[in-house]
Amino acid sequence: MNKANSPDNVGIVATQIAQIPLPPGGLKLENGGAIPDLQVAYETYGTLNASRDNAVYICHALSGDAHVAGYHSEQDEKPGWWDEMIGPGKGIDTNRFHVICANILGGCKGTTGPVSINPATGKPYGSQFPSITVGDIVTVQHLLLHQLGIGRLAAVIGGSLGGMQVLEWSIRYPEMVARCICIASAASLTAQALAFDIVGRNAILNDPRFAGGDYYDKPESPALGLAQARMIGHITYLSPEMMDKKFGRGKEDAAEPQHKFGTLFQVERYLSYQGRKFVARFDANSYLHITEAMDSYDLADTYGSIDNAFKGVQARFLVIALSSDWLFPPEQSLEVATALLRNGKRVSYCMLHAPHGHDAFLVDIQHLAEVVRPFLLAGSEPVATPPEPPADIELIQRMVGASARVLDLGCGDGRLLATLAGNRATANLGIEIDLGNIAATLDHGLDVFQGDIDEGLSMIPDGAYDFVILSQTLQEMRKPQLVLREMLRVAPAGIISFPNFANWANRLRLGLTGRMPKGPSLPYEWYDTPNIHLTTLKDFVDLCTREQIVIDEIVCVPDCSFARLLIGMGLTNLGAERVLVKISKATRPGG
Amino acid sequence: MNKANSPDNVGIVATQIAQIPLPPGGLKLENGGAIPDLQVAYETYGTLNASRDNAVYICHALSGDAHVAGYHSEQDEKPGWWDEMIGPGKGIDTNRFHVICANILGGCKGTTGPVSINPATGKPYGSQFPSITVGDIVTVQHLLLHQLGIGRLAAVIGGSLGGMQVLEWSIRYPEMVARCICIASAASLTAQALAFDIVGRNAILNDPRFAGGDYYDKPESPALGLAQARMIGHITYLSPEMMDKKFGRGKEDAAEPQHKFGTLFQVERYLSYQGRKFVARFDANSYLHITEAMDSYDLADTYGSIDNAFKGVQARFLVIALSSDWLFPPEQSLEVATALLRNGKRVSYCMLHAPHGHDAFLVDIQHLAEVVRPFLLAGSEPVATPPEPPADIELIQRMVGASARVLDLGCGDGRLLATLAGNRATANLGIEIDLGNIAATLDHGLDVFQGDIDEGLSMIPDGAYDFVILSQTLQEMRKPQLVLREMLRVAPAGIISFPNFANWANRLRLGLTGRMPKGPSLPYEWYDTPNIHLTTLKDFVDLCTREQIVIDEIVCVPDCSFARLLIGMGLTNLGAERVLVKISKATRPGG
Repeated sequence: MNKANSPDNVGIVATQIAQIPLPPGGLKLENGGAIPDLQVAYETYGTLNASRDNAVYICHALSGDAHVAGYHSEQDEKPGWWDEMIGPGKGIDTNRFHVICANILGGCKGTTGPVSINPATGKPYGSQFPSITVGDIVTVQHLLLHQLGIGRLAAVIGGSLGGMQVLEWSIRYPEMVARCICIASAASLTAQALAFDIVGRNAILNDPRFAGGDYYDKPESPALGLAQARMIGHITYLSPEMMDKKFGRGKEDAAEPQHKFGTLFQVERYLSYQGRKFVARFDANSYLHITEAMDSYDLADTYGSIDNAFKGVQARFLVIALSSDWLFPPEQSLEVATALLRNGKRVSYCMLHAPHGHDAFLVDIQHLAEVVRPFLLAGSEPVATPPEPPADIELIQRMVGASARVLDLGCGDGRLLATLAGNRATANLGIEIDLGNIAATLDHGLDVFQGDIDEGLSMIPDGAYDFVILSQTLQEMRKPQLVLREMLRVAPAGIISFPNFANWANRLRLGLTGRMPKGPSLPYEWYDTPNIHLTTLKDFVDLCTREQIVIDEIVCVPDCSFARLLIGMGLTNLGAERVLVKISKATRPGG
Repeated sequence: MNKANSPDNVGIVATQIAQIPLPPGGLKLENGGAIPDLQVAYETYGTLNASRDNAVYICHALSGDAHVAGYHSEQDEKPGWWDEMIGPGKGIDTNRFHVICANILGGCKGTTGPVSINPATGKPYGSQFPSITVGDIVTVQHLLLHQLGIGRLAAVIGGSLGGMQVLEWSIRYPEMVARCICIASAASLTAQALAFDIVGRNAILNDPRFAGGDYYDKPESPALGLAQARMIGHITYLSPEMMDKKFGRGKEDAAEPQHKFGTLFQVERYLSYQGRKFVARFDANSYLHITEAMDSYDLADTYGSIDNAFKGVQARFLVIALSSDWLFPPEQSLEVATALLRNGKRVSYCMLHAPHGHDAFLVDIQHLAEVVRPFLLAGSEPVATPPEPPADIELIQRMVGASARVLDLGCGDGRLLATLAGNRATANLGIEIDLGNIAATLDHGLDVFQGDIDEGLSMIPDGAYDFVILSQTLQEMRKPQLVLREMLRVAPAGIISFPNFANWANRLRLGLTGRMPKGPSLPYEWYDTPNIHLTTLKDFVDLCTREQIVIDEIVCVPDCSFARLLIGMGLTNLGAERVLVKISKATRPGG
């Protein structure tokens, strides 16, 4: 008994085959070849709604297939490859969405590929299968959707090579895609990832049983070469930490290795097993063609730059990196997300703490679902209870005024941006370091970028926002001067609020008691305070002068009647417990 | 014309062959086999001195050989593999040292290995060559030195597999080795490194031309398999950053790939070239035997723990990690160094910023030499000009008293420790983050560990020192409380000095001017100060009370006559510009 009957499972499903009608001459491919006829293996779960706009398309990775969730029979022991992610109430909720996944072109799981019969010869294509690209793969997916009568997708989602397909979807069919989720992927492979693919293909090509690709009628297939390629792949899918944790230098109980120069290390058994298992379910020619398509994928090369590639994108994006992924390292996801941002697109970015390495997108579903689910669902229904607005909200709202694009540095759970935006879709963005807060911000239907403000705002283009907010965070920055400069690089105006170290209570405490100031706005002990660069109103004003920053308005907030009195007497630096300063860029003389 | 005549080159050298006399039954090996006769190929440079104690033994890595420096002829285009490191005036200075390097047992460059003639058959050993270990390799090196009449080594030095040999030397022949330098190595391979070796061997074993190892009389050798193994190896020798920098996604000018599924990526040409080049100079059986020896090397497994392994070590150690090395990651070098430290051995540790990856120990010689040279030479002659002592040295000397083992946190260029030690060899240790300072500390003949105090002192065992010093650094710590606790974990007593935020000048400045204090001991602006956790004498005393730390003595240092007067009046917290506090651990009640 499997879990097919579990209420959160899509249940018993079947792979279907679509015969795609093609024009005379067949399907023209990007590298010059053509395919005379085309069939696509696919599965669907959940109900397509009446307006046919709740379809979510799943793009699978190198060795995946159409069977992404559920079971093929009551006896089936293994569910689809992303079963934990897809189902009623799960990250991709089949109560809300109609989920579609198809085996990719060139694969060996039902969609036309090298192992399919070539109508010209009546035999498998083998060496005659034409070269394919990620673009061709997506073209075939588009043909399938046309046949299914789906003109617009609620979302396209994929990891690794699947993420590259997501990028292609957003570029080729911008009007068809509402949301995109691109996980552990890249605009092109790194040199190191290329190198591993090259060596993997080399192993297959060197296997004498490969026979130039025409091995289907031979007694043996290039199993040793394909297994070798898969073993290399498996090393790259796991983080070194996870390998050490999973295997370390552990040994089998066997007295002797299986062959000379074999070892008893568990990692050897694991790799051999993965190699053998793969050979039983995959085809060497498919492996060669699909890795070649992945290797040659290069948005910068195709469009002149990644930025250019995304010019026409209309989808809202969620780009997810995995912390310990070294095959598609997080910088590559960040590169995709910032290129979208530079194009003014709506995009969120986060890096999941994922110790499993690249494999995490297949195994660490819980963390993925925490951001995938709110991103997919937010905005699909009105917010029941709006978030409680933050402190000083009226002041901030007045200072922000009618600014259309607001950037909130350290946005927390997004309540400030949500309050500013109401229930409108906005071009606002939050920067936030904490993943729980990021999920909450996504839940408000807002865009958020995971990042450490202390490392600068290099992801934000010059002047990309109308207004920037840094609320009660300046004193926690390692480099407050840099943050100030960055703020007025990315927006012409902003608000900074901070505790005023020179307020009367702090002065008295240091002056009379000889102790480090503490109080409502400085609640920490000197040794555990996050406030590492405290300042006074006067010192801050001085820095603004030095930095040629215009101060448009200063609001001094007192913490008691005495302080209010001091401020009333003009003794602002003595009375202010915290300060809100509206700043703007100095216009250049003659500018 | 090569550089053989350059004044810093060892010149024209020749590989020599030593026939090593063996007892009846030959050389018994650790895994049970034996070798009936033994020859060793070696080279030497520099002059062995009269007391025969200036010999430095170089241990080569997987594919190295005896030819470590100089040229084999005037026409020879390629010098020895570490020529930049070894020579007159270089990192390993042949004006001072007699350098020896030999091809390892199992190799294919002149020392007995699988390609050597088996006296029992008159044919190459091939499949009959017995299994070897790193221990066997070092045993053979020891036999060679015996034959050369060298009873004690000034140093043993090696990187990667060579570093494992260094560890073995220090454990097996502790009385023979004065200093050890272990570079980019480990007490055992990681699971990931094992995995790559396993897949590499698999490629050779799968090559039909391998013929079980007896291919020497066949028309073809397992060149494709060996090349495949080397290609995998080469990926692991380079950091991903360096791969991106060296090749990126650059393509050759050729119109077409050399074969189907070949690419035009430069990284493919590089890997093919490295594979072909290796096949021309190396033997597949040697590759299998040596990687097997490396894979099975495991100090923790052999001795119960790494700590146990080092119990008898007498050599002074320098352990060097390479920042971007992912084959022998820095944590593994740190593990070796801390195990030595836990055993109370004299050991220094540093991590070189080395973007090349594991390969850096062969190519980034300049940075290596900066620490290798002072480590080898310091103490070999008296210091000409002792370093200028630091501020407050008399106070510190008095407080330290007769403590034998002093730990200086943030030791800078080592001048405080050097002054405390005079010219004696000591059990003192400095912790320092800056590499230039580390080289300077080594130059004083002192031991130093590269580390960030803010990340704790986990490398230092409980109570390993008699006295610990933190001079003018507390206020720069992210977690001062943790640092305090760590200090009194590793030593029963110590000194902390810091600027006193409550001194009269700071109080006046904040109280009267409403500005952040500045002055001689607080010279920075609020926004760029490294002082992120300032405190007052009173607050510090409070923290000590809370932490149950005993204050043995407080010395308040004034910065002017007025301050001296205040201190004289007992107003220490008002007068002290900086404070030195001698602290010690509270003895437990009833303890």
